[in-house]
Formats: sequence, structure tokens, C-alpha cells
Amino acid sequence: MREKALRLYPPPSVELEAGTIYEGDAIPSAPHVQRTRAMPHVVLNMVSSADGRSTVSGKASGLGSAVDRTTMRTLRGKADAVMVGAGTLRAERLSLGTDLGTALGTDRAPLAIVISKTLEIPLEQHLALDAGQDLLILAPECQGEDPHARARTRVMRGPSTPSGEVDLARALRMLKREEGVDLLLVEGGPTLNHALISASLVDELFVTVAPKLLGDAEKPAVLAGPLPKPHGLRLLSAYLAEDELFLRYALRSSTNFA
Amino acid sequence: MREKALRLYPPPSVELEAGTIYEGDAIPSAPHVQRTRAMPHVVLNMVSSADGRSTVSGKASGLGSAVDRTTMRTLRGKADAVMVGAGTLRAERLSLGTDLGTALGTDRAPLAIVISKTLEIPLEQHLALDAGQDLLILAPECQGEDPHARARTRVMRGPSTPSGEVDLARALRMLKREEGVDLLLVEGGPTLNHALISASLVDELFVTVAPKLLGDAEKPAVLAGPLPKPHGLRLLSAYLAEDELFLRYALRSSTNFA
Repeated sequence: MREKALRLYPPPSVELEAGTIYEGDAIPSAPHVQRTRAMPHVVLNMVSSADGRSTVSGKASGLGSAVDRTTMRTLRGKADAVMVGAGTLRAERLSLGTDLGTALGTDRAPLAIVISKTLEIPLEQHLALDAGQDLLILAPECQGEDPHARARTRVMRGPSTPSGEVDLARALRMLKREEGVDLLLVEGGPTLNHALISASLVDELFVTVAPKLLGDAEKPAVLAGPLPKPHGLRLLSAYLAEDELFLRYALRSSTNFA
Repeated sequence: MREKALRLYPPPSVELEAGTIYEGDAIPSAPHVQRTRAMPHVVLNMVSSADGRSTVSGKASGLGSAVDRTTMRTLRGKADAVMVGAGTLRAERLSLGTDLGTALGTDRAPLAIVISKTLEIPLEQHLALDAGQDLLILAPECQGEDPHARARTRVMRGPSTPSGEVDLARALRMLKREEGVDLLLVEGGPTLNHALISASLVDELFVTVAPKLLGDAEKPAVLAGPLPKPHGLRLLSAYLAEDELFLRYALRSSTNFA
């Protein structure tokens, strides 16, 4: 990819190859970050149109550019684990890999995690993994036997809420403690994004703003559901490539920033 | 307002007073713009949260900062007319002025325009105008007598569509021809924004991205309704003040850019 990009913020403006956006950026950015806390550092990555819609024809994959897909893989390459909700996986075929594992012949692919209440996930049809990438299915304790016996795949029984959902706060602590997940990248969908932000479990937000207007309030927004109060954000960085903006925000509620 | 802002784009980064955002920027920006066309240059101004929501508790006024309100007035000061839909005026009390008219004792306030199908508009309760600011109510031809006889207020009967709405394309031409409106600023709401973009009548979009997550797909998005196809955007400028982004886009469908 030979396209040029600009880092707009923090100043001064710097030109770079579009394919290298986020490559040199530490996550978390703060050197004093509490790696010692019991929770992973949780980062959401989402793509949105300029009018705040998250999908084209029900699929997020129609919205971002080739540069966006590259930054997505760059972020995955920095993460210990990449998580999606089962609904997103049911809606479209997607990869949770970096496309680096095979090429480098190394074992650097992040752990892929799918959260599912029902274990009804079209893994074979919809999930592409790197060679050497492990898959963890996180399901509530109360569910039955795992129908997905396949290589490199495990089912982790997470603590569940009274309503039978995975208890996210306790599940994240478990991922850190038992799987060594220090940096968790979450790629949606809107229901999982909303559940994590509602529970104040998110430290950072990466938002790609595609230079498009999509319209239609019926299509899912990036957060599917109400928040009891607005969550404040602080802009950490902004890049621009071909009219597409790559914004990185810290949640003001995060304990991982001074 | 002593806050600092940064112009992030175009480069290089420049520091400025937050209260002066857009003050030095020409609208339209292109020197070769077709001032000769029969349509006004149409600019939408909207505020959105980082997750694409346009209101807090049903009101846009809760979302933007003091800097946003200042940039709104700066844009009004450049426009020949400022338009809102009647629904927005019913939802909240708002000003369509620059707050400059009174102070300067001049007649520089833009023409205020309210589009209404029914003429049921709470003008007295909800609309604040500058001293010396005229109000034009744009209604379909088929509606009855105007109940709003008050000083500096006129009702213009716009051409109407078969369904009884104002025919926006023909009404805009009329505003240019009869009222001399070269630059029209539209401040929503989502229904009017959507109608104008659907009809490809918009040249530019000013979007303030408030550094907040609001959640809730039930709240109106900035465009209330589907678009037959995505509209492409080109970034013209970006400013940053206190984590709030001020983005200016050209619609790729606009005939006012090369």
C-alpha cells in the first residue's frame, strides 16, 4: 500500500505511509499505566460513517477502506487477544488474524475470542484464523456441551449474570489471570461495545470515520443501547488517509490514564 | 473565550484562539466556485457525539460545547440565510442569530428561515432572533392563512410536492432568485438534513464531533432516514479544541468543487 497519510494530532503534522498508521504507537500510551491491575487494558476498534452509522447492508466490512483494514491488522498485532460478539460473526464472515502469522512463520497471532451466550456460532463458515492462532469461545457457565470440537479451539466457561449472560467484568479478570491477556482488542459488534462501555470496562476507543454519509436511523449505531450517562473522551491521536480519519480516544473513566 | 485550538488540517498545524475557528475561512472555499448557478451554496452544520448521536435528552443544545456555539455563530455570520426545520424548533428553544447584530448596531444578521408544512410553529416561545433579523417562514403553497402576523416576519409560499411538502430544490432556487441567498446555512434537524442530502442539494457539511459517548440507537441520528446510496465526502479542514473536533467536508456530489 503506497498511499500517504498524515498524522494530524498530536502536532506537528507528520507524513507517513498509510499502511503504517498505529505501527509506532504504544498501547496503552501512558508509560505509567497500571499493568498491575487485575483487568486487561481494553481497547475498542470501530468504524463509523460521518453520520454515525456502523454498517453497510448489515456488514461493517463494507464501510472501511483498505487502509482501515490494514490498521485493524496492525492493532491486532499489538494485542494479546481479539474479541468479537457472536452476533457480529453471525452477520458476516471475518478474520481475527493479522495475516502475519503464516508469513513470518511465528506464533505471534493474538488469541481469538468469541463471546456467545448460546454457542450457536457459524465458526466453520464465518471465521478465518491465522495459522497458529488459537480460538477461545467464552460462554456462560450454565450452557450445555460444546458442539465445536476442533483443533486449537477451547471453550471457557465464564462466570454468568443472573440473566444468563457472560459476566464481562469477571470474565475479563479471568482472561488476564488465566490467559495472560494484558491488552484486549474488541472489534464489536454494537451490542458487545455497548455492554463493555456500560460496565465502564473500556480504556480506549479507536474510531475510523469513513468519508461517507449513509443515512438511516434503523441501521445499528456503533453502540447498541442507552447509556445511563454520557462517557467523556480525550483525543489521543488523529491520522488522515484519503479523507478517512483514524481517531484514538481515551475513556475519561479509565483508570489507566493519569 | 480564551481557550486554545489547533488547526489540524490542512497542515501545518496552527494554534489559534478557539473562539476564532472558521473566522478566516471562506465559504465556499474554492475560488472557482459557481456563484453563477441557480442554487445557493448549501452548507449543513451539525453536532454529533463520537458514537454518532445528535441529541441529549432530545435536544442538540446539550451536546456541543461553548466553542461549538461560537463556531455556529461564526458560520451564521458568513451566511445570507440560516434555515431550520419546524420540528427542531418545536423540540427546543433556539437562536438563529449571530449575537452580533445588536452589539454592532448593524443589519448583518442572516435571514432566518423556518421550513414548515403545517405552520404550527412555536415562534414566540422558541425562536430568538437578533435585533434587525428578518424571519421567513417557508410553507407549501397548499396551506391556509398565516397565523403568525408579527413584525419582520413574512411567509413565503414555496412550490410543493405532490405529497404536500415544500419542494426543496425549487424552493432553494426561489430563495436565491428572490431573496438573494447565495450562501444558505442549514442547522437541522435530522429530517431536513436527510431531505436535502437525499435530493443532492448539499455542498458542504460542518460536523462537530463532541468528545462523548451517548449510546442509544433510539435517539435520532444526524440523518433521519435511509439514503439510496452512500454519499462520498472530502475533508476540507479539521480543528481541535478541548478534545472536540470541528470537521468540514465537501459532498463529492456537489457541483461547487472542481
